[in-house]
Amino acid sequence: MSDKYDANRDRVLRVAAELFAKSGYHGTGITDLGTAVGLGRGALYHYIGSKETILYEISSRQLAQMNTVADELALTEADAEKRLRGLARALMRNIATHRAEWTVFFREYHALTDERRDRIIAGRERYESHWRNALDQGVRDGQFRSLPRLMVKGVLGMFNYSYLWITLDGAESPEEIADDFLDSIIIGMRLRE
Amino acid sequence: MSDKYDANRDRVLRVAAELFAKSGYHGTGITDLGTAVGLGRGALYHYIGSKETILYEISSRQLAQMNTVADELALTEADAEKRLRGLARALMRNIATHRAEWTVFFREYHALTDERRDRIIAGRERYESHWRNALDQGVRDGQFRSLPRLMVKGVLGMFNYSYLWITLDGAESPEEIADDFLDSIIIGMRLRE
Repeated sequence: MSDKYDANRDRVLRVAAELFAKSGYHGTGITDLGTAVGLGRGALYHYIGSKETILYEISSRQLAQMNTVADELALTEADAEKRLRGLARALMRNIATHRAEWTVFFREYHALTDERRDRIIAGRERYESHWRNALDQGVRDGQFRSLPRLMVKGVLGMFNYSYLWITLDGAESPEEIADDFLDSIIIGMRLRE
Repeated sequence: MSDKYDANRDRVLRVAAELFAKSGYHGTGITDLGTAVGLGRGALYHYIGSKETILYEISSRQLAQMNTVADELALTEADAEKRLRGLARALMRNIATHRAEWTVFFREYHALTDERRDRIIAGRERYESHWRNALDQGVRDGQFRSLPRLMVKGVLGMFNYSYLWITLDGAESPEEIADDFLDSIIIGMRLRE
């Protein structure tokens, strides 16, 4: 597909994310989306296909990017604490930059059916396992104290919940906020000498 | 209103929360709800009124309970760390017990209009201020180190996000999980002597 096709598709997904975040997936019609992007139903179909495809693309894209970042960190950053910091900074930056997409992801992914839903859930589990691996390794390496089994859920919650409040024009950058949050936990988790 | 009226109303709200959590607010019709609770449209209206009233009741009820608990703790528990622990335990227990309601709250409250939406937002802000007050007081009292401005969002995120995963039949009780999470943060926040 051409660059122009990709650019139009990206634009449709971006506008759709904003509409879905504002009015909900079920509350937004294909006609609303067409009006917002200036395309008729046929052209929309050309770029995206069904409304559920749009939801799937919105929900899967940032998650896939975060998994790519996590895969890369797993290969390049051997230190558990530094890897956590890399995961946290990238996630906070991504949520701040794509807040509409993450809002749709958290609110609406359950509206996906069958294989698409399964793939999103599998993607989330894969992403969570990257965080869990870093926590587990930190314990094995003697950086962290023994951690509760569900700690990974708490840590991820700290960051994921930011889709409700984070902005790009706040006093602190997303990376600074990520560092602040992680410091609070890490200092608490760090094995006392 | 009579006890029977209240009991029926509670049952309608409970079933509605489960349906909304499963199929979404927009994806659930009044007819679906009527079938699930065995009431016709007229009887449903008698107990609840509009579909938006149901969403409002579901969204506001647990939040109101948590604000009541927080108000009580603010009066009775002078120690900041103990107050945080009380807030955290009550919230985790409530989310585990009313997971469907919290799922609806987080996913769907934006579908509320005008005054109802404003009241939910005000209720959330009031609840958040209870946590913020406890954190701020802990700093003033020399229990915690100076904390980042957004710390309260991170701490609340840890707990709120549990609507996605917590169960009442896990190996740990909601209170134990709350203690684990808070320990990780508090030990990190505690002023070093």
